[in-house]
Amino acid sequence: MDTKSLDKIALSVRSLAMDAVQEANSGHPGLPLGCAELGAFLYGEAMKFDPTAPAWLDRDRFVLSAGHGSMFIYSLLHLAGYALSLEDVKRFRKLGSPCAGHPEYGMVPGVETTTGPLGQGVANAVGMAVAEAMLAARFNTAKRRIFDHYTYVLAGDGCLMEGVSAEASSLAGHLGLGKLVVFYDSNRITIDGGTGLAFGEDVGKRYEAYGWKVLEGDMYDLPGLGKLLAEAKADTARPKLVILRSTIGKGAPTKQGTAGVHGAPLGPEEIAKAKAGLGIPEGKFWVAPEAYAHFEKRRAGLAAVRAAWESEFAAWKREEPALAAELEALLAGKATKPLDLPAFPKGEKIATRNASGKALNAVAAAFPGLVGGSADLTGPNVTQIPGGVFSAADHKGRMVHFGVREHGMAAIANGMALHGLSPFVATFLSFVDYLRPSLRLAALMKLPVVYVMTHDSVFIGEDGPTHQPIEQIASVRAIPNVLLLRPADAEETVVAWRMAMERRDGPTVLCLSRQNLAVFEKDDPEWALTMALGAYVVKNSSSMPETVVVATGSEVGLALQALDLVRKEGACDGVRVVSMPSRELFLAAPAPVREAIIPASARVIVAEAGVSMGWERLAKSEDILSIDRFGESGPGDEVAKHLGLTAERLAAMIKG
Amino acid sequence: MDTKSLDKIALSVRSLAMDAVQEANSGHPGLPLGCAELGAFLYGEAMKFDPTAPAWLDRDRFVLSAGHGSMFIYSLLHLAGYALSLEDVKRFRKLGSPCAGHPEYGMVPGVETTTGPLGQGVANAVGMAVAEAMLAARFNTAKRRIFDHYTYVLAGDGCLMEGVSAEASSLAGHLGLGKLVVFYDSNRITIDGGTGLAFGEDVGKRYEAYGWKVLEGDMYDLPGLGKLLAEAKADTARPKLVILRSTIGKGAPTKQGTAGVHGAPLGPEEIAKAKAGLGIPEGKFWVAPEAYAHFEKRRAGLAAVRAAWESEFAAWKREEPALAAELEALLAGKATKPLDLPAFPKGEKIATRNASGKALNAVAAAFPGLVGGSADLTGPNVTQIPGGVFSAADHKGRMVHFGVREHGMAAIANGMALHGLSPFVATFLSFVDYLRPSLRLAALMKLPVVYVMTHDSVFIGEDGPTHQPIEQIASVRAIPNVLLLRPADAEETVVAWRMAMERRDGPTVLCLSRQNLAVFEKDDPEWALTMALGAYVVKNSSSMPETVVVATGSEVGLALQALDLVRKEGACDGVRVVSMPSRELFLAAPAPVREAIIPASARVIVAEAGVSMGWERLAKSEDILSIDRFGESGPGDEVAKHLGLTAERLAAMIKG
Repeated sequence: MDTKSLDKIALSVRSLAMDAVQEANSGHPGLPLGCAELGAFLYGEAMKFDPTAPAWLDRDRFVLSAGHGSMFIYSLLHLAGYALSLEDVKRFRKLGSPCAGHPEYGMVPGVETTTGPLGQGVANAVGMAVAEAMLAARFNTAKRRIFDHYTYVLAGDGCLMEGVSAEASSLAGHLGLGKLVVFYDSNRITIDGGTGLAFGEDVGKRYEAYGWKVLEGDMYDLPGLGKLLAEAKADTARPKLVILRSTIGKGAPTKQGTAGVHGAPLGPEEIAKAKAGLGIPEGKFWVAPEAYAHFEKRRAGLAAVRAAWESEFAAWKREEPALAAELEALLAGKATKPLDLPAFPKGEKIATRNASGKALNAVAAAFPGLVGGSADLTGPNVTQIPGGVFSAADHKGRMVHFGVREHGMAAIANGMALHGLSPFVATFLSFVDYLRPSLRLAALMKLPVVYVMTHDSVFIGEDGPTHQPIEQIASVRAIPNVLLLRPADAEETVVAWRMAMERRDGPTVLCLSRQNLAVFEKDDPEWALTMALGAYVVKNSSSMPETVVVATGSEVGLALQALDLVRKEGACDGVRVVSMPSRELFLAAPAPVREAIIPASARVIVAEAGVSMGWERLAKSEDILSIDRFGESGPGDEVAKHLGLTAERLAAMIKG
Repeated sequence: MDTKSLDKIALSVRSLAMDAVQEANSGHPGLPLGCAELGAFLYGEAMKFDPTAPAWLDRDRFVLSAGHGSMFIYSLLHLAGYALSLEDVKRFRKLGSPCAGHPEYGMVPGVETTTGPLGQGVANAVGMAVAEAMLAARFNTAKRRIFDHYTYVLAGDGCLMEGVSAEASSLAGHLGLGKLVVFYDSNRITIDGGTGLAFGEDVGKRYEAYGWKVLEGDMYDLPGLGKLLAEAKADTARPKLVILRSTIGKGAPTKQGTAGVHGAPLGPEEIAKAKAGLGIPEGKFWVAPEAYAHFEKRRAGLAAVRAAWESEFAAWKREEPALAAELEALLAGKATKPLDLPAFPKGEKIATRNASGKALNAVAAAFPGLVGGSADLTGPNVTQIPGGVFSAADHKGRMVHFGVREHGMAAIANGMALHGLSPFVATFLSFVDYLRPSLRLAALMKLPVVYVMTHDSVFIGEDGPTHQPIEQIASVRAIPNVLLLRPADAEETVVAWRMAMERRDGPTVLCLSRQNLAVFEKDDPEWALTMALGAYVVKNSSSMPETVVVATGSEVGLALQALDLVRKEGACDGVRVVSMPSRELFLAAPAPVREAIIPASARVIVAEAGVSMGWERLAKSEDILSIDRFGESGPGDEVAKHLGLTAERLAAMIKG
């Protein structure tokens, strides 16, 4: 280990971080100053990567879970030779700079995930380590190890206080993710002050309880870091937590070791003192020439490593054409064979969760990248798939039992998606609230994660208001770049799954019924294509419609019943029923499409078993049949009736 | 200990639970059958309560965190003599029955909190134990112990897998909550199958790491339970986890110990076999006469305990009139002195988070029940209050440092509110997603929790899209019974705090700015009163308004700027600016009020720095100035400009 050069790298990280935060007059110097040695060690010595090929399949992953310390990773990526110039670093936190306030996936090569909301990065990394283990088990051969890399994390006190990291870490231990190494920047300082205020637990012991190997050392002992990592790697069966005693803001002479250095610029005076003390020359954004020189040399070594891997990979592809085709499809999110989706006869009564289960199995058969599971609701969510269970003993399995850990599940799925898989997760729709922060990040990162959310309305009945979604559909629709689909019968469910698998730039949330729904006739002969635009005509009127009833999910059946009631009174002419599985797609469709489905001249009535919010865009508030209060415990039909969600009431609204 | 009678109580719990679930054809027999002995022990022997006075201040609290096992608590409350008849039990899960699918707070005396969403109950109980410790420290005297009770929890594997329980448990250990006892029903079974699928961690060791005392025993050894509890109580400085090895569905001869018994009726055949094996006579809803007899005797003893406490309490009130008045106000959520809210001169530029900090301190001075804190953002959220910090060493403090544990914080606050306190919690608005499940439960339970959510828009700038709320305001508004207030300046912030403290039947979410906002002139002379209706006229037009610009928070200032721009072109006549801190209150206001503020004849323009969803109720979508995409990292004003949120754009919209 060339500790002299690594010291210079650490020094340069401190220099860049201090100046960039000061220049932006905003940001968090505490972490990059406090952890600079670890960064120097990882990028300068330990990690396998190639800055000229940031998407290299077998690179080691690094996740800065404590995302506020973003100058840590920007400094290192710049020094290591990624496509991130010093000019970019100088524009830290400026509008349009790739060096955003928190690391944003897709903006800087080498940033493996968006972090900032605490705890998420740890859980993302668990997902990456799951993916590595899965891919290694599925694609490595006796002769060639195509997948053989580590996932490294830097986490702080905040990350380890969050429940999402606890959930994911417990599962990581259970799954024996031996190539996951979490470095814990144990500086005993949080924003409010010392960790003595709120965080006195024995973190190491907790992680041992999870089944992790726990090591401890000094952040500033470079050879020690080397020994710790060697020891960590020697244990191949357990994830590792490496607790590094550290000083926040190390190098800032008067502020280090205090909460004041966490999230504010040091100020010119402190910076001047720090630089004098550290031996950094005057002037801004200084980088030690030895740091650049070290990485120049290192890049040559790393390029050779990658070249060796590339020739292994090429040989593997020749030897294993079937596996190679499967891997290619997996990484592209494509199918390796035609999708043999199930069909359902008209009139069959089947819950959309059950139709989803059949579609999911068809999808799993065709898409090698489809992996995932439920938060301990595999049966109720109908998400059993073949291919075995991913476990400590068998990393080949495609199904993951996430346990009762919705938030961890969704954050882990983000990590799996970032690693090239096409994950699905599942729970009751009511509990989408538990995983919402990770769903938002999937949307922000444009990750193709499918959320199988069953038990989608008060029709679940007896479990009562805690389990009955009311505002969940609207609140998920409110998140930008989430595709929410609420299919109305088994046929729509199949199309919804196809749309979900075709979507590569964001998450899809499928809202599925627990109760049976009849498969209905569709007047639009091209309905399955039209549905991709968000809505289509289920039941047309014989004339230009005067009234359009827009419904989603189980309320489409309700609308058809209401139409029958109206018909009995001979008043159904001029009434059209539209199914709108996706409000957002419909609103984004071209105007002529929207006009063809809902003519501007028509009165619009909307029916959905949830809050009215958002539907006022299409209908007057008095024309929306909704549920704007919490539900009740009782048989589903009775609850719906009690809340006024009936065909009779809808019929009365149609009649006006 | 009268183990014979306790056995009969356990037998009766099994009898009622089997039959009620079967009769409802829905529900979860596994837990009540598996934990009947613990229930018999707690209610029949250990706990301090009086069924004739379920609101008794000094009762022990019991929380069924594993709320799906609701027949456990319904059986016991019925047997113990609470106002819950056998007829009620027979109507388990029927519409209108107090015996809802999951225990609902307020529906059955003796149900201390709504549970069902897993993990919440553990965290609620932590809040109750915080409250007990606080109240004891503040109100007990050298002579009299008015508050001296325990908080008991029954939690299952699911509860202990959830991050929210992990967060709360870590804090509970840190705070040394010696009177919290969590019984862990360790049956090694979850819905998907054995805990070996996903939950192999050493739970006891984890809780030791949190600083808890951990005990272990057998669920079915009644004298053993007595010894365990005595041992638990002997340690007064730490919360206790009592791990009880158990068999799910115990007594169901072929199904016990399997996932199949968790959440479905046993079926008549299995029930018949179970009853035969257990010695339960034929017929439904049998109760052992000895069970009723035991509780009849016990009630007399408990009544004497309460009578003794009541005379202590009466003596305490005589001795401590000032404390007694304080306690009375605390429990009623009232002030003990006039609220001396801060005033701000017109034109002063101050962030609403800072105005909130001043108002909060005024509120804290007047309301003895106001307690709370931030998830490690005390400075940024401006939530420092006097009265000391609640810690293991000092249970008198009114401020709680929750650590970076948003979800645990909100669930703990629910428990504090259930115990009579008026808690506030705080974090960045973007992270309301982390605590959403607990916010929903506060709304469902009608709890007066105040959420101080600062950094309420893209104007926070550099921290970027992960920290910039976009959809959060709309998604919180979507939850029934949440009052969301987004004040537009310091004066409105003060009124918002007053409204929040006056609200006793649900949570209030205050959305506050990080950036400075000018205090503006208000044309409505009664604006502070009108604001309680949701909206008021800030700037009237000289004529009947043709255009009404509705804005919230920082966008009211933007609207006033836009009006100035329009005025420069001489086109401002007929334009009115309305501030609408609460959309929901306004929409619920009487029609004449709404008409007086927004005449039906006027064109309405809305401006809010978040998604448009929900505003279509008031304005056409092209008349809404909103942000329907994720934000960007950069200085706040530049980001807002980049996203089109400018006075110029709003002025152009006004001009049409």
